[in-house]
Amino acid sequence: MSTGVRRRMGVEERRQQLIGVALELFSRRSPDEVSIDEIASAAGISRPLVYHYFPGKLSLYEAALQRAAEDLAGRFVEPHDGPLGGRLLRVMRRYFDFVDEHGPGFSALMRGGPAVGSSTANALVDSVRQAAYKQVLAHLGAFDPPPARLELVIRSWISLAESTALIWLDGRRIPRAELEVQLVHDFAALAAVSAAQDKEMSLLLRGLLKDEPADGPFTDLVGRLMALAS
Amino acid sequence: MSTGVRRRMGVEERRQQLIGVALELFSRRSPDEVSIDEIASAAGISRPLVYHYFPGKLSLYEAALQRAAEDLAGRFVEPHDGPLGGRLLRVMRRYFDFVDEHGPGFSALMRGGPAVGSSTANALVDSVRQAAYKQVLAHLGAFDPPPARLELVIRSWISLAESTALIWLDGRRIPRAELEVQLVHDFAALAAVSAAQDKEMSLLLRGLLKDEPADGPFTDLVGRLMALAS
Repeated sequence: MSTGVRRRMGVEERRQQLIGVALELFSRRSPDEVSIDEIASAAGISRPLVYHYFPGKLSLYEAALQRAAEDLAGRFVEPHDGPLGGRLLRVMRRYFDFVDEHGPGFSALMRGGPAVGSSTANALVDSVRQAAYKQVLAHLGAFDPPPARLELVIRSWISLAESTALIWLDGRRIPRAELEVQLVHDFAALAAVSAAQDKEMSLLLRGLLKDEPADGPFTDLVGRLMALAS
Repeated sequence: MSTGVRRRMGVEERRQQLIGVALELFSRRSPDEVSIDEIASAAGISRPLVYHYFPGKLSLYEAALQRAAEDLAGRFVEPHDGPLGGRLLRVMRRYFDFVDEHGPGFSALMRGGPAVGSSTANALVDSVRQAAYKQVLAHLGAFDPPPARLELVIRSWISLAESTALIWLDGRRIPRAELEVQLVHDFAALAAVSAAQDKEMSLLLRGLLKDEPADGPFTDLVGRLMALAS
């Protein structure tokens, strides 16, 4: 198992390589099913050398999760240009790209399980949710603090995006492009339900939608709903 | 610690009493913070006697969770009488009653953590979600199998109810009665978004809404949305 490559790699470089290999394996199958032997084999090194860099599978899993969390948080970053519906749709496309790339690992993590329910793993999931919340909030305007009902709409929509992605992964029975649009519509619908009950949310929603173009997802939804109601 | 009460109780009766005492404590504070000593003290028995009935805190926690899961699943059962909006609203009221009664324990369980993320706990949470799904599906009609988009609407709405309840528990900044109505509206909104994209869902939704009364939550929502759009 000793190779020239191994001798040439520095400690940090080797750690990063192992994290990449592990993330690939933890993404494609449930992390419970991935062994240190497999990771060692995929990285082209011996099992003891894996343990030299990471004390156990959990620490390697958490390092891989950290990298995935940073990757996902980065995909929520979207320029503040153009209509809101289009921005949310681009974010949803990148979100589903991520979910697609990491399917089995994403499912295992979000559904919980013996190898994935550590407090570090939970904290990383929460940090990604928080990053998503901050990004969406920033697109809706500057609020400090945001109204409780606006926070509820954004956070509950993020959980809706998670559950929709998990249900999609379970059989992929609905095309993902349709779900990406649907989630943008869901956001508008949840905001509209909140606005229907609350004056502050109503004013906020009117402000957000006034710049929506006739061919954007929000206008599209209103047209479809009116056709449905007729 | 030896009392007459202890001698009179049979094994199953004592187990059930301990489960009740534990559920009360696990509901009011995060389960991580509840000790076996406290449970013993609240039950009026010695710590060794608790271990006589349950091998450890985890098994007692799982037994308490089992009872809570059965309780919650029972609250989803609603007679198939009258308009759908009213039925869903009564279920949401009972759901928030449960969340209110078990607040800190519910939060700890759903957010995950060292004492609560066992595979048994996850399986119980999934069993309650499945019970909720079956109940809601039955109210919408007899489908075998249900269309994928209908399943998605119901399951994602259940996750929305979970996240809304968790956000409510975190500060209780919005009156729960308002959130109960909002979740019924959210259901209609998610179904409408799906129906706006899909013919089968559109037909299904029209069938569901044709019997809604003028003073029901669905009609109320449509009126409010039309006012908002004008």
